[in-house]
Amino acid sequence: MEVGVVGLGKMGLNIACNLKSHHYDVMGYDVSEQVRENGKKEGIRMYHNLETMIQAFKERKVIWLMLPAGEITEGVLQTLMKTLTKNDIVIEGGNSNFKDSIRRAQAFKELGIHYFDCGTSGGISGALGGACTMIGGDAEVFKEIEQIFKDISVENGYLYTGKSGSGHFLKMVHNGIEYGMMQAIGEGFQVVSQSEFDYDLAQVARVWNHGSVIRGWLMEIAQQQFMESPNLEEYRGIVAASGEAKWTIETALDMGVAVPTIALSLFMRNLSQEDDSFSAKVVSALRNGFGGHTVVKKDD
Amino acid sequence: MEVGVVGLGKMGLNIACNLKSHHYDVMGYDVSEQVRENGKKEGIRMYHNLETMIQAFKERKVIWLMLPAGEITEGVLQTLMKTLTKNDIVIEGGNSNFKDSIRRAQAFKELGIHYFDCGTSGGISGALGGACTMIGGDAEVFKEIEQIFKDISVENGYLYTGKSGSGHFLKMVHNGIEYGMMQAIGEGFQVVSQSEFDYDLAQVARVWNHGSVIRGWLMEIAQQQFMESPNLEEYRGIVAASGEAKWTIETALDMGVAVPTIALSLFMRNLSQEDDSFSAKVVSALRNGFGGHTVVKKDD
Repeated sequence: MEVGVVGLGKMGLNIACNLKSHHYDVMGYDVSEQVRENGKKEGIRMYHNLETMIQAFKERKVIWLMLPAGEITEGVLQTLMKTLTKNDIVIEGGNSNFKDSIRRAQAFKELGIHYFDCGTSGGISGALGGACTMIGGDAEVFKEIEQIFKDISVENGYLYTGKSGSGHFLKMVHNGIEYGMMQAIGEGFQVVSQSEFDYDLAQVARVWNHGSVIRGWLMEIAQQQFMESPNLEEYRGIVAASGEAKWTIETALDMGVAVPTIALSLFMRNLSQEDDSFSAKVVSALRNGFGGHTVVKKDD
Repeated sequence: MEVGVVGLGKMGLNIACNLKSHHYDVMGYDVSEQVRENGKKEGIRMYHNLETMIQAFKERKVIWLMLPAGEITEGVLQTLMKTLTKNDIVIEGGNSNFKDSIRRAQAFKELGIHYFDCGTSGGISGALGGACTMIGGDAEVFKEIEQIFKDISVENGYLYTGKSGSGHFLKMVHNGIEYGMMQAIGEGFQVVSQSEFDYDLAQVARVWNHGSVIRGWLMEIAQQQFMESPNLEEYRGIVAASGEAKWTIETALDMGVAVPTIALSLFMRNLSQEDDSFSAKVVSALRNGFGGHTVVKKDD
């Protein structure tokens, strides 16, 4: 089966290599020349033009998108709406908002093109060696491409989730949970690290990974990181956030469901990005105002 | 090696069986006749009196305590202080507060008795088939009993954590992290379950367990529970809390360290136990007071 991968960054290149190792005829397109070179090195037939790649298909066109969510994904999808033809297949494997996926699936459906939203988890290593995929779209057409997900996912690691949007919705919540789990792990290690005892954090993560209740992949990553860097000296405590936890919280707000720890985990990331929190300044100013408390001022 | 297990409830019985399967000469003591019968059925030599069990030892006495933290553990330890002799060993495997463990280790040290605080994770199945153990106490004497922990833990699943208290401290933080992870998982599944899509929660947990970032033992338990009960009908959303998350938060407060999601996870459990939250009543009364908002009253 021919598959064209659009976007061969860290995730996309590994998905392409994963497909290739399962004997798919893989083509690739990326705007970046450097990225195209990376693809060529891995033996992917790279095209510098999306339309040219699409013309190169001999059979039914199956396009896998692995692009940053938002404008970039939207732009490529607009081009695909003009160049693909009836019965072709688009698999959008990025982290798009599920509402966009519902809208896009409808637009493609009107053209007779099958659109699948695929939440892809497992990080960069998973993309190459076996991902976790959650796929929404038409149930009947899914059967025609199910083998792709079976091939590139770990055993038992793919799920047809239902109608369009359900794949990205599930990946969104997955990431929300991930934020909460990571924040709890971070808080716990800080307490351990600043305690009166003298722990080796890599050994702590190691023992927690063997037989404990909190064992899992995140703790395995923690173990590996602490082994490489016992006090994480080369990191700064500044954490970025992509959109999924925010969308999980927004979705929960729309539902009237409480997701306090997921919300707080995102707020903690937001806070971590502030050099000098204005809310803390306000609290300082108020303490100074009513109590004459000693507060830290800018020239201290 | 002879080992006497005190407290053969769900955890203690399985630790005793685990020791027995590794060819330790296991004795047991429990106040409950029913529990003693359970022990006998598993081939443990059971005593209905702690002193009698201690007199039955032919060699150096090694006593493993697996009792509810607090008064019960304290009471048995007081008895042990009177009946054990110099160079004997106490392993306290329950969920005691690490400050109690520091104090107790000192009291036993003054009698020449070696006291180890052992945090034991992995639940009931781990206690039987391979636990995760974190042990604080004297480093030299630890070597003499290290084989016990090697035998009853999963491979790589035990850690000598340092001076007295460090084992229970680490288990305390482990449980704090566990609370946060569980709360995030709970929130996520509620969003999934109340969404516009039609998910099979057991299948969701299954796919998240295979290749995803949030895979781990807690998600495996979720999968198993949802397989047995797709909507958890037989559960009520009322969650108890043992002391460890509370102590993690108190310790963090003493350190001046922020553990917001761990704290919030405990607050959510506390809230889950209230039939009719007084704080929510206050908010209702205030809304009614200033805005004449329609509020739910008791006879509605």
